[in-house]
Amino acid sequence: MTTNAIAGVYETVVYADDVVAMKDFYADVLGLRLVDGPDDLSAAFRLPDGGVLLVFDPARAGLPGRPVPSHGTVGPGHVAFRVTAGLDGWEDVFSRHRVPIERDMTWPGGGRSLYVRDPAGNSVELTADEIWPD
Amino acid sequence: MTTNAIAGVYETVVYADDVVAMKDFYADVLGLRLVDGPDDLSAAFRLPDGGVLLVFDPARAGLPGRPVPSHGTVGPGHVAFRVTAGLDGWEDVFSRHRVPIERDMTWPGGGRSLYVRDPAGNSVELTADEIWPD
Repeated sequence: MTTNAIAGVYETVVYADDVVAMKDFYADVLGLRLVDGPDDLSAAFRLPDGGVLLVFDPARAGLPGRPVPSHGTVGPGHVAFRVTAGLDGWEDVFSRHRVPIERDMTWPGGGRSLYVRDPAGNSVELTADEIWPD
Repeated sequence: MTTNAIAGVYETVVYADDVVAMKDFYADVLGLRLVDGPDDLSAAFRLPDGGVLLVFDPARAGLPGRPVPSHGTVGPGHVAFRVTAGLDGWEDVFSRHRVPIERDMTWPGGGRSLYVRDPAGNSVELTADEIWPD
């Protein structure tokens, strides 16, 4: 395993019945770079660190007999993003786009997270800090 | 936005009714480093690139009134990991742990992915290649 280990997460997925409607949030509000779609099935956004955020319609991605294994969830998921600077600028971004901040969290260790919801109701967190044990 | 952009995904989440049962798969089979839990609510695994994979019980993470916003999904999700070398060694790992390979996929661009299921049925993909447009 040490010679062939996992290096990191490549694809992170959130689900939405209306994939196209997610583009406005992830591209225009969060500023992610759209590299595929959006179409009825999916959209792909490339992150600066090389990772990919995927949005899938669970009804279509969950159909049997697709070229790739089926998957698809119902209910609000969660994803957290690293931001390159503090969170103050993001309060302005969310205000400008009329995205309500659901929670402004200060962690016991001193870190801070802002939480909003994407158009499908997924919980989206932004932080510049380290929250989990190393 | 350019001075305060998103750098990457920090937390990726998969859900499982039995969080503790997921530890064997993610730590022992995939070799991820457990840094928190597992308990009835969650487990956290630190990736070598600094990202975090979280496992949550949707019934508990979805309860209202938690310190953080509620979230929780039902059904099979999906996550893809980057591996540092090719996939041949991983066939041996999965065979040794009796984890069936659901799909061995060669992409039109020449990349390759192995797909397995975690104990909760989430679709877990490993690849050493670049699959999405840059």
